[in-house]
Amino acid sequence: MSDIALTTGTSPVKELFIKMTVDAWNTQVARLTKLFDALSDEQLATQTAPDRNTGIYLLGHLVAVTDGMLPLLGFSEKLYPQLEKPFITSPDQSGQEFPAAQELRKYWTAINAKLNEHIAATTPDEWFKKHNSVSTEDFVKEPHRNKLNILINRTNHNSYHLGQLIYLKPKK
Amino acid sequence: MSDIALTTGTSPVKELFIKMTVDAWNTQVARLTKLFDALSDEQLATQTAPDRNTGIYLLGHLVAVTDGMLPLLGFSEKLYPQLEKPFITSPDQSGQEFPAAQELRKYWTAINAKLNEHIAATTPDEWFKKHNSVSTEDFVKEPHRNKLNILINRTNHNSYHLGQLIYLKPKK
Repeated sequence: MSDIALTTGTSPVKELFIKMTVDAWNTQVARLTKLFDALSDEQLATQTAPDRNTGIYLLGHLVAVTDGMLPLLGFSEKLYPQLEKPFITSPDQSGQEFPAAQELRKYWTAINAKLNEHIAATTPDEWFKKHNSVSTEDFVKEPHRNKLNILINRTNHNSYHLGQLIYLKPKK
Repeated sequence: MSDIALTTGTSPVKELFIKMTVDAWNTQVARLTKLFDALSDEQLATQTAPDRNTGIYLLGHLVAVTDGMLPLLGFSEKLYPQLEKPFITSPDQSGQEFPAAQELRKYWTAINAKLNEHIAATTPDEWFKKHNSVSTEDFVKEPHRNKLNILINRTNHNSYHLGQLIYLKPKK
């Protein structure tokens, strides 16, 4: 499989599956946004299940993970590097101080808008280039470890936590 | 965007994208399988959170949804059409009788093995053909509604419920 053949030139099929991948990402972000908007700060402060992550921790976690995509995809530095410690390297209930829910809601909107700008500006060829946590040597052998693959994996990560956050919504 | 250009011929990028999509599917199925294997029948019988779906309902639901992919992708008839009523059209706790957990565990293994056989036998061109719940007319305008897109969406569906099923595992 030639690296040149993979990363240069456009083709309808390449554009089509970039659309499929970006659509799937947008669908999960829209579902999360709709849910966050429907939940009060008080609801966000509660646990998704007994002794499990709170809504606010998961909101901060999803903001921080989405923020981490900016450098990983070579787009920019993180917007909120201060969120890594409380929401990625520390578990919930570890005594870390969290920003207020209202702040985290703004970050969620802002980080997704910023990422969307970069996604819209990414050329088809660029999606098939390596992301920043794989070496050039490994990428030659494993060309699937490209930027689009990060988007696929993070879409599933969003779905995973959406399944938990939905438990904050009162049952009808 | 020419339909002919999309659905005929192979290209490294097409094969790469199919690999990325199938890998993501396999990753989520493997995580679910590992979790089901780690849970006892008694654990599966409990609710994932208070007043939420039980593990056994979600196991049956995921078997039934995976089974539904066989006709949707044009592979075959369903193996377990009897699961649609208790696990798709009915919610949990609706009085429907469930097969025993041991049976559903066997179905989970069998349906994924069967689907994997079909996935392995599907040509790159075939993945970009329409699935069976979109009309030929609509597919001309919306070529992203292809078989590969079903696999992307069902991978996220598996992730969503994995996030809930993980709550059945005792916290360390």
